[in-house]
Amino acid sequence: MSRSPGRKQENHKISRELFVLTYGALVAQLCKDYEKDEDVNACLDRMGYSIGIRLIDDFLARSAVKRCRSYSETADMIAQVAFKMYLGVTPSVSCNSAMGNEFSLILDKNPLVDFVEELPAERASLCYCNLLCGVIRGALEMVHLAAEVTFLQDRLKGDAVTEIGITFLRKPEDRKHKRN
Amino acid sequence: MSRSPGRKQENHKISRELFVLTYGALVAQLCKDYEKDEDVNACLDRMGYSIGIRLIDDFLARSAVKRCRSYSETADMIAQVAFKMYLGVTPSVSCNSAMGNEFSLILDKNPLVDFVEELPAERASLCYCNLLCGVIRGALEMVHLAAEVTFLQDRLKGDAVTEIGITFLRKPEDRKHKRN
Repeated sequence: MSRSPGRKQENHKISRELFVLTYGALVAQLCKDYEKDEDVNACLDRMGYSIGIRLIDDFLARSAVKRCRSYSETADMIAQVAFKMYLGVTPSVSCNSAMGNEFSLILDKNPLVDFVEELPAERASLCYCNLLCGVIRGALEMVHLAAEVTFLQDRLKGDAVTEIGITFLRKPEDRKHKRN
Repeated sequence: MSRSPGRKQENHKISRELFVLTYGALVAQLCKDYEKDEDVNACLDRMGYSIGIRLIDDFLARSAVKRCRSYSETADMIAQVAFKMYLGVTPSVSCNSAMGNEFSLILDKNPLVDFVEELPAERASLCYCNLLCGVIRGALEMVHLAAEVTFLQDRLKGDAVTEIGITFLRKPEDRKHKRN
């Protein structure tokens, strides 16, 4: 990606702090709305999905990237171009399966949790940043890639890093099988 | 990507599109939660207030501004420094009262509504961006300035511009009187 630091791009940037606090307000509202962590997680994932299916157009237009030829290239694109563009961070990527369809995005620092110290005890199963999983899933679906995206590790839960797992599902039918 | 204008600042920036869509998800959720527009507006204002009282520290630390000596200077600071820093836009400022305590921030373009075309008919009283009013109110309160902050015009409602009114309340007692 070669983008000169032109004015247009600058106009697309806002302060992360405002976003992080607004996101916190969203999660807090959902915690009021839903008693179970699983329901909050599912809602964040759905919201993220709706965002992802809209954000992909913006991403393709602004990044001007070429079509990826492999899952590995797609995972690198998400980490190095999309995360950088939207969140200002670049996770490292690792491949987790001999099949070459399972990847991890590993974040030493999660920009969405700047103001969050730890999850309250009664919210131990909350995937605070689950919106991100939905965004990735929705965006991938719009380029005809079905995937399951979940948090595998979370620093908010005491893990050493934050790790997002992406499993590309080879065919639409695979997914059904997996779910049944 | 080579971006020279200060790595530290870059780390504080994220893409506006992700913020705008996430904010949209928050407003949509509140519209599910509350039937009346007034309740959604009040909730957004409360959320914004909580954000404002936390964001002010970040603002004072990063902007390194000096103490304002007048309401007029404060209004300019909000428009030219705070809006620029957090939303990447600079509203124009006008003073609306001979008393010198009422100001308008006028936005030709509201960065929070990029993906919103118009409000649905059943949500005609919704102040979509009311979070901003709360943020300003909360931040001002933390520097010992009581203020009422409301939308006076809104392009989403067909007005020519978006206008946020800030009325500085001279003493805490004034406010009580005004409300009663």
